Amino acid sequence: MTAGPAEDTRTRLLQTALRLFTEHGVEGTSLQMIADALGITKAAVYYHFKTKAEITEAVAEPGVRDLDELVRRAAAQKRRGAQVDLLLEGFVDLVIRHRTLVALFSSDPGIARAIEKSAHGGMEGFGQALLGILSGPDPDTTARVNALVTLTGIAMAGGSPDLAGLGDDELRTELLDVGRRLLGRPRRRIPVPTL
Amino acid sequence: MTAGPAEDTRTRLLQTALRLFTEHGVEGTSLQMIADALGITKAAVYYHFKTKAEITEAVAEPGVRDLDELVRRAAAQKRRGAQVDLLLEGFVDLVIRHRTLVALFSSDPGIARAIEKSAHGGMEGFGQALLGILSGPDPDTTARVNALVTLTGIAMAGGSPDLAGLGDDELRTELLDVGRRLLGRPRRRIPVPTL
Repeated sequence: MTAGPAEDTRTRLLQTALRLFTEHGVEGTSLQMIADALGITKAAVYYHFKTKAEITEAVAEPGVRDLDELVRRAAAQKRRGAQVDLLLEGFVDLVIRHRTLVALFSSDPGIARAIEKSAHGGMEGFGQALLGILSGPDPDTTARVNALVTLTGIAMAGGSPDLAGLGDDELRTELLDVGRRLLGRPRRRIPVPTL
Repeated sequence: MTAGPAEDTRTRLLQTALRLFTEHGVEGTSLQMIADALGITKAAVYYHFKTKAEITEAVAEPGVRDLDELVRRAAAQKRRGAQVDLLLEGFVDLVIRHRTLVALFSSDPGIARAIEKSAHGGMEGFGQALLGILSGPDPDTTARVNALVTLTGIAMAGGSPDLAGLGDDELRTELLDVGRRLLGRPRRRIPVPTL
């Protein structure tokens, strides 16, 4: 499958939008700024997207799709330990694969507002689904706190400019290690990403 | 020291502003909305604050002042272990004392932008000061990741609506426990807050 010129422009447009969102925030970025950065007309942007909200949704879409699939796959595991391990490994993997997007989510609520209409009822719904699997049925306070610190800490650290210089493999090892310690899971060989 | 009527209005104004910021975001809240919620005129708001930026700074000011003092006190400790323990305990305490403000920081970059001019060069400067103390001199990657996950995880969990139902004492015990595990510090008797 080869991308045609229109598909190519769409891809570049989304990459440019993500970069501008990161620099100026979603609210501080206009369609005109995206067109200027790409060296195309605003009409050419309109050919692909009618509004900034459509662009924002499309920018977030790959991350949202991976998150949705991760929740489904983890929930389908029969054993509790397998659920937690799959969710933790998949979440670390997802954070690393979408580092720039995760950083944007951590610093700009505009991106979260833009995807309120997703399958799980927006980021709030995803957060609850992830927390529910990590903390288990009828969790006590400690289990709830551990699950929250694990998810938010991994997402914030993974998207932090302080760790932007780390390679993917090193960051994955570190985040998995800290997650396993928080959740009381045994250390394991780092698996090959499967999602 | 008894607060006069003007001081009283100022306090109520800041409490109301924080509530509206939480509900609508800083950018989605106008001076008129603050005046309406208080049942006062916009002129009465102007008597205390000329711009929304001034209100935002004043809302964040108690948290910023506590953070500044915490960094100074921790940095003044001679032993490394005492620095880490004081910073962790003080940070957990601060997060709990300013729960609503911390929740706003976690969800709205408008509040962070508003205090860019603080003593430590805004939240970025505070973050670096806190991380520097927690991770120690010449930190390896693991120490940097642990410090980042500890600070962001405690702040995000402490400000999370998921834990809003927990009492201060229970939340303090849980956050201290998770922080000590992440930083490899021994569990201790919960100290009386001193900051």
